Amino acid sequence: MFIEIKHGSGGRPTQELIKEILEIYRDQSVNDLEDCALIENGIGVTIDGFTVSPRFFPGGDIGKLAICGSTNDLAVRGVRPNYVAVSFLIEEGLPKDELFRAVDSAYRVSKELDVKFIAGDTKVLPKGQADGIYITCCALGQSVTDRPWGVNELSPGDVIIATGPVGQHGALIAALRYGLDVDELESDCAPLWPLMEPLTKIPGVKCARDCTRGGLGTVLCEWAEGASLGIEIDEDLIPLTRQVISLADVLGFDVLHLACEGTAVIAVDPDCLHEVLSSLKEKAPLCAVIGKVTDEHPGIVGLKTSIGGMRVVDMPLGEMVPRIC
Amino acid sequence: MFIEIKHGSGGRPTQELIKEILEIYRDQSVNDLEDCALIENGIGVTIDGFTVSPRFFPGGDIGKLAICGSTNDLAVRGVRPNYVAVSFLIEEGLPKDELFRAVDSAYRVSKELDVKFIAGDTKVLPKGQADGIYITCCALGQSVTDRPWGVNELSPGDVIIATGPVGQHGALIAALRYGLDVDELESDCAPLWPLMEPLTKIPGVKCARDCTRGGLGTVLCEWAEGASLGIEIDEDLIPLTRQVISLADVLGFDVLHLACEGTAVIAVDPDCLHEVLSSLKEKAPLCAVIGKVTDEHPGIVGLKTSIGGMRVVDMPLGEMVPRIC
Repeated sequence: MFIEIKHGSGGRPTQELIKEILEIYRDQSVNDLEDCALIENGIGVTIDGFTVSPRFFPGGDIGKLAICGSTNDLAVRGVRPNYVAVSFLIEEGLPKDELFRAVDSAYRVSKELDVKFIAGDTKVLPKGQADGIYITCCALGQSVTDRPWGVNELSPGDVIIATGPVGQHGALIAALRYGLDVDELESDCAPLWPLMEPLTKIPGVKCARDCTRGGLGTVLCEWAEGASLGIEIDEDLIPLTRQVISLADVLGFDVLHLACEGTAVIAVDPDCLHEVLSSLKEKAPLCAVIGKVTDEHPGIVGLKTSIGGMRVVDMPLGEMVPRIC
Repeated sequence: MFIEIKHGSGGRPTQELIKEILEIYRDQSVNDLEDCALIENGIGVTIDGFTVSPRFFPGGDIGKLAICGSTNDLAVRGVRPNYVAVSFLIEEGLPKDELFRAVDSAYRVSKELDVKFIAGDTKVLPKGQADGIYITCCALGQSVTDRPWGVNELSPGDVIIATGPVGQHGALIAALRYGLDVDELESDCAPLWPLMEPLTKIPGVKCARDCTRGGLGTVLCEWAEGASLGIEIDEDLIPLTRQVISLADVLGFDVLHLACEGTAVIAVDPDCLHEVLSSLKEKAPLCAVIGKVTDEHPGIVGLKTSIGGMRVVDMPLGEMVPRIC
């Protein structure tokens, strides 16, 4: 048995691999279905490795992505990002200028978020034992919600919101790798904390997640399975750009499996829906209600299609494009 | 200008690269010359990337090394390791068995230290874009000393202790890579917290460091430069095994530049020397006083040689063997 590319998809095979790893750590792990762990004093911690190829792309680069990707895992848990610890694995022969461009853009987004760089490490790998640069970022912060947001808070009737068009990052990276024209498509790579912070003051917000590897579909499957509840979303309500629709069409990808790097999905109590949407609209004008949580078909995500049918949404079973983040 | 193997040595070129990175982060970094940062509530944080080749070696493997290496950075700061967040970059085609052997030995040392696994990430890289497995580990813990140990605490007259024979890990990995007979040599890879914990109750302990990449010589240079004080060590007092001496001889390496992964150097007030040595002797019978801090020749480390002379110790200027940790 060997590790295959599909184990990095973020979908079903990744889940299974992680389950096997956690099985070894059974009595020494704090595992609560979230990407960000909460330890004492409400401190939130997450870690993420970034290997994106190409390293520089419209809308971002590996440095910006490392800070956004890791701090977004905190933001969607209602945790204010305060610190990052960053480890660089660099391939011998990388132009120093490329390293510093990536560090500089990591710096700019850290500055914007007022996140401090507290620890770092650099290792250099001989040529051919890495591809350019890989960055692992551990982000730490302070939980500021009364109750931590999480899968365990979901209940039937909760409304599901997408904060913006989905799949932009995944579609862009796939298009670049296949040599397709990306038109005006940009990655949505952006910090989510500015969007999430005002929501931490609204008690009816239940659960949120950034839709990275595996896309919106995978997040909703994890929620449905984790909460043993059903989720129903409506194809016509999912915010999508014209470019993502046509790229997914050309490449044969399901838009629900395309990664976002600055777009979140949020579950809220219907009583606070208006307040949440008002708050989001300022910075995320394309946010939209896309579905709801239900006590029917527990563990299953259903998609109402445009032509009136209903299909089951699953996590990806393989990897569409490796190294998207 | 390109990144070269020497930038990963842990010596002078690494210091310069890190300085350039920190220069970009000037107003957004918490940098106090230590490998472990202290944030609010006495929480200590460190991050380390591990790429060691071979992945399995006498005395340890990449999994054990990742937990020891990262938690040791906390231990030498007087910080009890409590949590690890671990990120795996895996090359497609790695036998799953090898991944699980590494995870299993990471688990065993975590269990021994009662360190909890709080967050993880796995990414899979296409064949040829990594070599087997790289692990980045962020360790978190609680400072338990009255004053944090650190370079700023050093004063003239402090006595310098090595907790055990130096250079074992570096000599072993170099020998394996050059295909030399390693005899009964084992890596010293081990957690330092069991050794350091009793010292946290002794007020005269000033500063400690695990002598990883760059070896004992590099740590002492960093101390002398960081504290603007001189350091003098005596060649005859440095604990060394017969195997390390002969391997260093054959390979032309300076033992002061060979990495340790379970051996620390500690600076203590002479008033508490007896108490510190009594505490260390139990678990580290080969610990030894090797020198002292002085107000002469600030910034310079001097080595009294066996033949009666004195030579300046510097950090390595190049990389002896890449991927030792």
